[in-house]
Amino acid sequence: MCSVNPGHQTRISYNFLLLIILQVGLRKVEGVWPLPQTFTSSTERYPLKPQTFYFGYRQQSAAQQGCSVLDVAFKRYFSVIFPGYTSGNDHLRCEGKAFFVEISVDSRDCESYPKEDSSERYNLSVADGQASLNAETVWGALRGLETFSQLVYQDDYGSYFVNKTDIEDFPRFPFRGLLLDTSRHYLPVSAILKTLDAMAYNKFNVFHWHIVDDPSFPYQSRTFPNLSKQGAFHPMTHIYRQSDVRRVISYARMRGIRVLPEFDSPGHTKSWGRGQPDLLTSCYKRGIPSGTFGAVNPAQPSTYQFMMSLFKEVSSLFPDSYIHLGGDEVDFSCWRSNPYIRAFMQKMGFGVDFPKLQAFYMENIVNITSALNKTSIVWQDVFDYHEQLSSLSVVEVWKQGCYLCEVRRVAKAGIRVILASPWYLDQPGPTHNWARYYTVWPLAFTGTEDQKRLVIGGEVCMWGEYVDAANLSPRLWPRASAAAERLWSDEKQTSSVDNAFPRLQEFRCKLLRRGVQAEPLHVGHCKHEYQGV
Amino acid sequence: MCSVNPGHQTRISYNFLLLIILQVGLRKVEGVWPLPQTFTSSTERYPLKPQTFYFGYRQQSAAQQGCSVLDVAFKRYFSVIFPGYTSGNDHLRCEGKAFFVEISVDSRDCESYPKEDSSERYNLSVADGQASLNAETVWGALRGLETFSQLVYQDDYGSYFVNKTDIEDFPRFPFRGLLLDTSRHYLPVSAILKTLDAMAYNKFNVFHWHIVDDPSFPYQSRTFPNLSKQGAFHPMTHIYRQSDVRRVISYARMRGIRVLPEFDSPGHTKSWGRGQPDLLTSCYKRGIPSGTFGAVNPAQPSTYQFMMSLFKEVSSLFPDSYIHLGGDEVDFSCWRSNPYIRAFMQKMGFGVDFPKLQAFYMENIVNITSALNKTSIVWQDVFDYHEQLSSLSVVEVWKQGCYLCEVRRVAKAGIRVILASPWYLDQPGPTHNWARYYTVWPLAFTGTEDQKRLVIGGEVCMWGEYVDAANLSPRLWPRASAAAERLWSDEKQTSSVDNAFPRLQEFRCKLLRRGVQAEPLHVGHCKHEYQGV
Repeated sequence: MCSVNPGHQTRISYNFLLLIILQVGLRKVEGVWPLPQTFTSSTERYPLKPQTFYFGYRQQSAAQQGCSVLDVAFKRYFSVIFPGYTSGNDHLRCEGKAFFVEISVDSRDCESYPKEDSSERYNLSVADGQASLNAETVWGALRGLETFSQLVYQDDYGSYFVNKTDIEDFPRFPFRGLLLDTSRHYLPVSAILKTLDAMAYNKFNVFHWHIVDDPSFPYQSRTFPNLSKQGAFHPMTHIYRQSDVRRVISYARMRGIRVLPEFDSPGHTKSWGRGQPDLLTSCYKRGIPSGTFGAVNPAQPSTYQFMMSLFKEVSSLFPDSYIHLGGDEVDFSCWRSNPYIRAFMQKMGFGVDFPKLQAFYMENIVNITSALNKTSIVWQDVFDYHEQLSSLSVVEVWKQGCYLCEVRRVAKAGIRVILASPWYLDQPGPTHNWARYYTVWPLAFTGTEDQKRLVIGGEVCMWGEYVDAANLSPRLWPRASAAAERLWSDEKQTSSVDNAFPRLQEFRCKLLRRGVQAEPLHVGHCKHEYQGV
Repeated sequence: MCSVNPGHQTRISYNFLLLIILQVGLRKVEGVWPLPQTFTSSTERYPLKPQTFYFGYRQQSAAQQGCSVLDVAFKRYFSVIFPGYTSGNDHLRCEGKAFFVEISVDSRDCESYPKEDSSERYNLSVADGQASLNAETVWGALRGLETFSQLVYQDDYGSYFVNKTDIEDFPRFPFRGLLLDTSRHYLPVSAILKTLDAMAYNKFNVFHWHIVDDPSFPYQSRTFPNLSKQGAFHPMTHIYRQSDVRRVISYARMRGIRVLPEFDSPGHTKSWGRGQPDLLTSCYKRGIPSGTFGAVNPAQPSTYQFMMSLFKEVSSLFPDSYIHLGGDEVDFSCWRSNPYIRAFMQKMGFGVDFPKLQAFYMENIVNITSALNKTSIVWQDVFDYHEQLSSLSVVEVWKQGCYLCEVRRVAKAGIRVILASPWYLDQPGPTHNWARYYTVWPLAFTGTEDQKRLVIGGEVCMWGEYVDAANLSPRLWPRASAAAERLWSDEKQTSSVDNAFPRLQEFRCKLLRRGVQAEPLHVGHCKHEYQGV
């Protein structure tokens, strides 16, 4: 079990087979997804054995044993590299040289959270039968561990190898997000955690949690327990308790992933109204309340008191400095029907300019969250009707059509941009159309270098109309992986769909092997097929 | 745990609540998918407890204990009805009346296989705190057990109930198939078995196993072991051994499902050529062999000897009287390029009429399988170019466009028809488009009653270009369920998409609860969400 199959020695004497082995070797090294910024590799390879394989800290590393993020990552990646291996299987000590992966990080940020400006840079060198991984932060070290795990491969006899390799790597964009919608369908916590695992394999670093919306309010608020009691699909089984949220945040942190909650308002709030009766605008029909409700009522002081309390709670629960405030798709018809809203608008001097009313509302919400030291993200709608742009920090572009035109407008206004439009994956598309998500060029607009630097990244959106835990994974992966490479890797080196195809096919097999239910790209097979539940 | 919650008795004294309960009761009874032909039900309901619930044989039943199909089905449906229950959980004997489901069948066909003319009719009566299920065959009894399992529901306190119900049921079409393609991607046996489970829940009764095709030949032949050795994606891990095939057939039998293998030729056979070098036509370019191969070579006697041996083996392994011979999409260009083929055609008097050559080939294959007492199915292409129609038994219509025109042509020629065109589910479509598969009217063509009787059913096709075990289930279900109701239920009672929608939503939740990874139809929730692996 521990010995390298001696048959190899005889086989490589044939030049023909040697050539094949060389090519396989090279192909394996290129099999890192997303593609590292620079790497050199050779066909020199080193055997790995689970019995004599060790992760460890370099002496000069700021982090040492006891560093939660890395200690746990070592265990996790050991299992990823040697799937199915348990030390109990060993009855014999194995001879042979040990393989060490020595890690060194510059700062001891083991108990902190990944942040918007955290370095994810790392250098990885595999040579002389051992590996050395250096990073500025533990988050960079996590990215390097992921890369290392993808470098390891098995030959036909089941032996593990890693080739001599040198990698210098860093992300192209600092914000590489994935949105899950837990309102249109409730996603069990286990489904969220599994998605975080797969995100880490793809080097995504932001989980955008679109936690509530019209259909349901699964977030269990301590301050306003009625919101989920009345607004969730089920008040006991279809909610996220504070402990669930903390578990998600902790699980994400261990993988270098920020958790960014979205409490979208003033639209998309029908479910809020059930547990907070005076929050929404009462719609009128022929002068009397019709019994239906519209967007959040922006004309009442109680609205802002409620929002202040809610965001205070949310801000303390979610450690990330960003919070998403939504602000998209507000239907003005209910506001328009309500005489009190209209009177309020007259008083404020808005006339019948409803976008002004919405801008007023959003301004208030942004101020509430600013006071809580949060950077707010809003959907592009808010930018589109806003006049006082100075209050906006980050705008997420989501509309279809010429999305780069919008990216340009936002960047020109000096505001940071996240691009989501080309990465709406909730609608099922043929997997072989993955290239559609790959051939996206977020900076292909006319603008200055400073303006382009304002494009901080992009986001894959998995809206929940037709998606729940039953089909989430195959709908996400590997199509989201195409976006992952676009956001991490160098554009010039990853411009060819033809070059990416076999690499993505191989990466998809790796995802399967790690238990991620990723769809096939096209006819073919994986060494280890998905075996199901 | 065993007692009915006494709170109920006081609640139903309120008329308002009574009304709700009545409606819930009615809705539950209608929640059988596919819809039975006739049923009456009332709000009278009976409690069920796993501790005192029994399936048993009536005295007059031809089948008694020891009937493999039903004995095993009793255990299976007990688990389906009471998910998660294990008798080990009981520490107390429960008082209360026992609930018996008494089964009676007219013929003792317990060890046989379901056949093309097997009756699936059953009557199910739930009254006076017990149930009675009568059927002509064990296959009909299986359908009745499935229906009974869907009638049972849990209230909010977890207690089980079944309403007073009378059902007479039988299928509209005798052939209700589902095709899986194990050549473009290999499906592990476990994925096939899980599909058979879900098929039984949907009352599908034919598993059409498109076992080999161009990309791979996973069927391990005893007579020609090289076919899978050279033609499978992997000769050890990506094959179906004879024992695997037998396991699939046995598992299917237990669920009243026929297994119908397809060995498609003369096209779609690239993978055959690897292990059977002289089988395929050598293509020529500028007068010399180009090194590529086309369809099976119809001009060599050795072809028919090979086919005879292969089909002899296949016919003895697969007990069903049907066999699918394919015959679709033959590319004539390689035949045309080959001088020996052209010479053969001259000799046979075919001139340059390549459809005549294909007809000649298919005629031979049909004769081979006829001699083995098999009824052959062919894809519509064979019908389209055939002149001697008398040799054709069953034609499967698959092409898009006016598929009913083709159904009509085939029926007019006096040949049995299976309709597949509207049920190609391999391409991902939005789940909410399920109605597309529901609003199919297989008999909506001008023809006599006798001609319409020739339409023996339909088939859902799940081709494998973009599908393997990772995404098979969510891509199949519940879209295939829409086809299942069309093929089982009365057309008049199931013509409304609006009526079907809530029923299908509920059925999809039942599928989830039974471990079938079925997609959501639209925004909403299930009491028990999919929890994943």
